[in-house]
Amino acid sequence: MATVKMVEYADATPEVREVFDDIMATRNVNYVTPYWRTIAHHPPTLRDMWSMFKRTMASGALDALTKEMLYLAVSVTNRCEYCIEAHTRAARGMGMSEEMLGELMAVVTLAGGANQLAVGYQIAIDRKPGD
Amino acid sequence: MATVKMVEYADATPEVREVFDDIMATRNVNYVTPYWRTIAHHPPTLRDMWSMFKRTMASGALDALTKEMLYLAVSVTNRCEYCIEAHTRAARGMGMSEEMLGELMAVVTLAGGANQLAVGYQIAIDRKPGD
Amino acid sequence: MATVKMVEYADATPEVREVFDDIMATRNVNYVTPYWRTIAHHPPTLRDMWSMFKRTMASGALDALTKEMLYLAVSVTNRCEYCIEAHTRAARGMGMSEEMLGELMAVVTLAGGANQLAVGYQIAIDRKPGD
Amino acid sequence: MATVKMVEYADATPEVREVFDDIMATRNVNYVTPYWRTIAHHPPTLRDMWSMFKRTMASGALDALTKEMLYLAVSVTNRCEYCIEAHTRAARGMGMSEEMLGELMAVVTLAGGANQLAVGYQIAIDRKPGD
Amino acid sequence: MATVKMVEYADATPEVREVFDDIMATRNVNYVTPYWRTIAHHPPTLRDMWSMFKRTMASGALDALTKEMLYLAVSVTNRCEYCIEAHTRAARGMGMSEEMLGELMAVVTLAGGANQLAVGYQIAIDRKPGD
Amino acid sequence: MATVKMVEYADATPEVREVFDDIMATRNVNYVTPYWRTIAHHPPTLRDMWSMFKRTMASGALDALTKEMLYLAVSVTNRCEYCIEAHTRAARGMGMSEEMLGELMAVVTLAGGANQLAVGYQIAIDRKPGD
Repeated sequence: MATVKMVEYADATPEVREVFDDIMATRNVNYVTPYWRTIAHHPPTLRDMWSMFKRTMASGALDALTKEMLYLAVSVTNRCEYCIEAHTRAARGMGMSEEMLGELMAVVTLAGGANQLAVGYQIAIDRKPGD
Repeated sequence: MATVKMVEYADATPEVREVFDDIMATRNVNYVTPYWRTIAHHPPTLRDMWSMFKRTMASGALDALTKEMLYLAVSVTNRCEYCIEAHTRAARGMGMSEEMLGELMAVVTLAGGANQLAVGYQIAIDRKPGD
Repeated sequence: MATVKMVEYADATPEVREVFDDIMATRNVNYVTPYWRTIAHHPPTLRDMWSMFKRTMASGALDALTKEMLYLAVSVTNRCEYCIEAHTRAARGMGMSEEMLGELMAVVTLAGGANQLAVGYQIAIDRKPGD
Repeated sequence: MATVKMVEYADATPEVREVFDDIMATRNVNYVTPYWRTIAHHPPTLRDMWSMFKRTMASGALDALTKEMLYLAVSVTNRCEYCIEAHTRAARGMGMSEEMLGELMAVVTLAGGANQLAVGYQIAIDRKPGD
Repeated sequence: MATVKMVEYADATPEVREVFDDIMATRNVNYVTPYWRTIAHHPPTLRDMWSMFKRTMASGALDALTKEMLYLAVSVTNRCEYCIEAHTRAARGMGMSEEMLGELMAVVTLAGGANQLAVGYQIAIDRKPGD
Repeated sequence: MATVKMVEYADATPEVREVFDDIMATRNVNYVTPYWRTIAHHPPTLRDMWSMFKRTMASGALDALTKEMLYLAVSVTNRCEYCIEAHTRAARGMGMSEEMLGELMAVVTLAGGANQLAVGYQIAIDRKPGD
């Protein structure tokens, strides 16, 4: 269905295998998801995206689950079905309860609606303290 | 600049004042931001949005700051300038540090880019465990 | 502010003037708005867009005001500030009352929020009659 | 396919059943569509959305069919497949003819294209009367 | 699956057949793709869109392959699955190599991410030369 | 106006200066644009984005001007005003003529409109050869 073929580990160049190995080691699993096997179509993009992914999604000032939920919220707003499925699953794996998912979707829904109103009426930013 | 006039407290109907009063009491401030004064143009929308806002953004299974950051992430993705400004300020007021903001934007950026790849290559959802 | 210069009537080629003349005649006004003076930067685009505009926005199975309101709803959702301003004004000129504008924005807001939920939970289309 | 399980009437809490009952009574049908059974995953969201839905989509200054068509136009622009399917069907049920649908899509298409031009050339809002 | 029925050549009106004939002649093929058979649902839209398509996508100051790739980049950003599939195929047919596709997607991904940052931090346009 | 302060060269840490120096050397200019001074707010994001930018936008299978135009097309579709301004200027600096810009915007406009139709009618992908 994808517009390019996925790269399988057995057929991968050493450069691509190195990234695949790091993905599996970092996540402590023994397979590589379709996302990474697909973007391996263009190895420099694979390398850049994995490097940014690994650094960005690790716990820092924000914990890893909060980051995962932010990622999910953006993916919903951007209508990326693969990403919604993958990151809903990932967030659950990191401890997101059904109640937390329900609240996340409520915020995403509220913001989606409220953004329309602010844009539709062209509400101007006002610099009074506290706005 | 807005396409409709803001409703000032002095000119508001009792129905609108009741919402304005609840906004000020809930937030413990003595003014109403342009967002609410503008959407007061249509009182039923003001009432519904405030009621959903108040319930949705309160701490629950997710704490209020996490909700504020999710709201900000959606507003960036939806390109709502007023909302970005207002919710960046609100999140800072609730304890979001500059480091946290930097990480939030890094996640929003990564997801925005990665969503493009998944969509562009039409990566299919695969049901193998763990994907 | 625009990234290209507007074409003024005095400087326009006969091809562009012909479109400007038709715009003014169709709308019964004696000026051409910045939108058309700007896209005149590329005359074939000017001609195509005006021809599609003139035909599409005329009353047909849907009356002209309903079309204007649909145009406004799309422009809000697409975050086009110029278009929101211009089409709010146009719809008012064709009889959209403040109450109608308030209801239009309420529908746009509700749909914007509800779209997020359907996408976020990946609700599947179900073919039972009446769904 | 959805990321959460639908709530069936038989398993619903009294709070959820009350909303389901009101949906069926308001629409004069004896089933609840997947949308509402899915968002019942988080009962407060179900309640808020239904209440906003019921009030907003009822005839007022705009008739119910016009509202349905505005909802469809937003759903197309937001790429919500479930919503497009459901609201195309609903609008037809309320009297939208194939000619009206064709004109609606023509307006949505024209606005989608014209929005790109106004944004792409960064056309500035000009306050001359009539623009 | 589509919300309207496709128009088959055998059932088409002379007006629609004329467009179908021109599509086949221009592309030197003996069938009409689902896109055109579907939008034939509303003949004026079919005629306008084909006329704009034919003129816009022909080689000019930009060659036809560059235009096809720009079209693909917009379709990815707009999340139009049908369009992504069709225009990936068309661009390949016009000479886009897998390496070129990889670089195109890398640019689309980078821009998608970088757009988020510029919007998220509300970076102001600065008129210093060279910015 | 931005929600974070720009980092000036004089105040930058050695890590940030190293990126700023590379930006100026790569572009052969003696200043750093607001985009990079702003995202320097979070140094790891600055470093990652610059590294991806430098590699991705260099000539390869696609020449640098084609990449710049693809970037512009995505930025228009994503409504990023800063990006539209900056990349229109950059593309002009690399040789994009006014006629090429006009054709680019025509393609972006056509695709934006045509995407709406394909989505709105939910046109199904059909696997007949050549579609």
